[in-house]
Amino acid sequence: MSTWVPGAAGSLFDLDNLPFGVFSPRGQAARVGVRIGDQVMDAGAVASYGRESLQPGDGPDLMPLWQQPSLNAFLAAGRETWDVARDWLVEVLGNEVHAERTRPHLYPVGEVDLHLPVEVADYVDFYCSEQHATNVGRMFRPDGDALTPNWKHLPIGYHGRAGTIVVSGTPVQRPSGQGRPSADGGPPPFGPSRRLDIEAELAFVVGTPTDLGTSVHTSGFADHVFGVTPLNDWSARDIQAWEYVPLGPFLGKSFATSISPWITPLAALEAAKTLLPPQDPPPLPYLEVDERGGYDIDFEVLLNGEVVSRPPYASMYWSPAQMLAHLTVNGASLRTGDVFASGTISGDEREQRGSFLELSWGGAEPFTAGGRERTFLEDGDEVVLRATALGALGGRIGLGEVSGRVTPAL
Amino acid sequence: MSTWVPGAAGSLFDLDNLPFGVFSPRGQAARVGVRIGDQVMDAGAVASYGRESLQPGDGPDLMPLWQQPSLNAFLAAGRETWDVARDWLVEVLGNEVHAERTRPHLYPVGEVDLHLPVEVADYVDFYCSEQHATNVGRMFRPDGDALTPNWKHLPIGYHGRAGTIVVSGTPVQRPSGQGRPSADGGPPPFGPSRRLDIEAELAFVVGTPTDLGTSVHTSGFADHVFGVTPLNDWSARDIQAWEYVPLGPFLGKSFATSISPWITPLAALEAAKTLLPPQDPPPLPYLEVDERGGYDIDFEVLLNGEVVSRPPYASMYWSPAQMLAHLTVNGASLRTGDVFASGTISGDEREQRGSFLELSWGGAEPFTAGGRERTFLEDGDEVVLRATALGALGGRIGLGEVSGRVTPAL
Repeated sequence: MSTWVPGAAGSLFDLDNLPFGVFSPRGQAARVGVRIGDQVMDAGAVASYGRESLQPGDGPDLMPLWQQPSLNAFLAAGRETWDVARDWLVEVLGNEVHAERTRPHLYPVGEVDLHLPVEVADYVDFYCSEQHATNVGRMFRPDGDALTPNWKHLPIGYHGRAGTIVVSGTPVQRPSGQGRPSADGGPPPFGPSRRLDIEAELAFVVGTPTDLGTSVHTSGFADHVFGVTPLNDWSARDIQAWEYVPLGPFLGKSFATSISPWITPLAALEAAKTLLPPQDPPPLPYLEVDERGGYDIDFEVLLNGEVVSRPPYASMYWSPAQMLAHLTVNGASLRTGDVFASGTISGDEREQRGSFLELSWGGAEPFTAGGRERTFLEDGDEVVLRATALGALGGRIGLGEVSGRVTPAL
Repeated sequence: MSTWVPGAAGSLFDLDNLPFGVFSPRGQAARVGVRIGDQVMDAGAVASYGRESLQPGDGPDLMPLWQQPSLNAFLAAGRETWDVARDWLVEVLGNEVHAERTRPHLYPVGEVDLHLPVEVADYVDFYCSEQHATNVGRMFRPDGDALTPNWKHLPIGYHGRAGTIVVSGTPVQRPSGQGRPSADGGPPPFGPSRRLDIEAELAFVVGTPTDLGTSVHTSGFADHVFGVTPLNDWSARDIQAWEYVPLGPFLGKSFATSISPWITPLAALEAAKTLLPPQDPPPLPYLEVDERGGYDIDFEVLLNGEVVSRPPYASMYWSPAQMLAHLTVNGASLRTGDVFASGTISGDEREQRGSFLELSWGGAEPFTAGGRERTFLEDGDEVVLRATALGALGGRIGLGEVSGRVTPAL
């Protein structure tokens, strides 16, 4: 089946992708949209006639789930509904008999406002790249082992600030804060961060909630997680380095975290599944997964339009099913809208590192971009994360872009 | 003025307290209530006639803010509305002319269901007791300085799991997780926590939100924070000790955090204001506060009905206004329903320590309770936090109790 939507077949947003977002046609209320090619389909509007013709009472009623200002109602409906919805979308956008009635509900993506797609409940950030953790360990703790003793036994994670997750395109104001005092013992320096950085990550969005006191087995991953988005975990390294012992990152991260307006369903990533790197020592039973627990997703980090890194998600040590099982093994409940992210994606090569901290080795080894030497972010810089994966139709599918431009400190 | 509500005058819930919560009369919908003595007043129901008689159109309309299943709408209304509401409550509950119309809307507190009062947005936990941080530092990092170098320069904090904040009375299931491997290098032990603990804290509830990219000055504390509740930050020390380096506490804390059903307004704590301990070195300008930035609140920790500790909130090094200024100095926005907690309250004396970790010095020095030696929590144990402070009428006001009973691991 091929889509009748002009320009969509063979694009990054073909019938095998179909990410969900929330959009407003000019001057109108926010509602759920599905991206196809360079168009956004008003899903609820199309589902309202689908109720007559496509689903005469034998499926979930999708329209009320989509006439909403966030994806949460749809996410809460669970895996069966997500699958029904996907089949229905493929029929609507793939079968030309629906073209005439659907076309009025397509909007060019450049002509709508795109919103934060999810009302985020809790946000957890993991630390799942061995290469990233090794690089950071070497820089932040030069006197110790690069990896802490727990690193290969559990996916290390921490809670981040859910309220400062913003949609792609939101400006990122340079944060101010304390840094480490100089060795002669004066007060800590205070001011705009001088080591503002990015972290290229993949985030997972929870749909189906759980009760307090229960755990999600690794095999239950796809029952609870709806889909994914790239995520930029903006980081102020000078603030972070001073504050993070002993309770972890706080103000160095909490000023902004950007996600895409598009959540790509897990169902679109079946062809991207891949082998995990070997896990040695073997994980404890609650962390055992199918060896095809990885995802082969190619990231690009663009600084002012120029690709400066290509982090390979396939290199991640811990799988998302392991992150979810770990997150809940203590009985912590899940809520619809929970987001958990992978941590910075860094591969073996320098040009695969997912942060400027690593690309410039803490600022000591500048990289070249825009024809000059660069280390950390300058005011006015724009960073874009892009990611693609193999789709079911044999081409590439695109995850939604995540962009942000740095504005000066207040 | 004295209240006409029988039994309330001179109690811990007199006219100078008036905490807010959310309750359901048997079989009815949840709504906002105000505690007076041993009664809960249906605030929205009383405000509906107040619209005719007490506030003929010259104040905010309180009724719709209170006919809600959480306090969030009222919290979002801001300081002026909170103050108007408090004056109105004092009139309604203090002037006997209102007794006849109000009495039908009073319910004995023992005959209603009490709910989580706030839809929690983000949850931040600080670490503001010098005595607690010193005790923990000595136990967790015996080879280093007890306080990390940053401790006296900033109130250290981290984000906790908002979705597992539960109301007092909710059972607390013992969490399972990984602990530190033995020195001979086998895999980490996995199972129910053997060092389950409490942390007696005071939490602050944010009402008025802020925009991303702005900061709250210490002088803005009372414009943004509505009130307080004791908080029990249940902690699994064995899980925490293994996981917390380098990104901080995660599963050792995220299984449950208990708060009271009652949020005591800041306005009720004016008489409890006290001097902060001397801060040396002097804090950076953004952390400067009025020296009366502390609160003199006496806590009690009860284990199975017996007082085992009396942590003094007045001993806390960092003030809540400093916590809030620090939390936002990087431009992080506030949302209505944000909760930030003080960290464990521990005084100078052994019997003032706010965790069993400290009371038993890591289990090495058991304390006596129930006629026998105790260290960490056993299944079936019930912990209750109580707190009182000087009120405006010269007696004590009570903060809401926080209780929880430990149930066995799954």
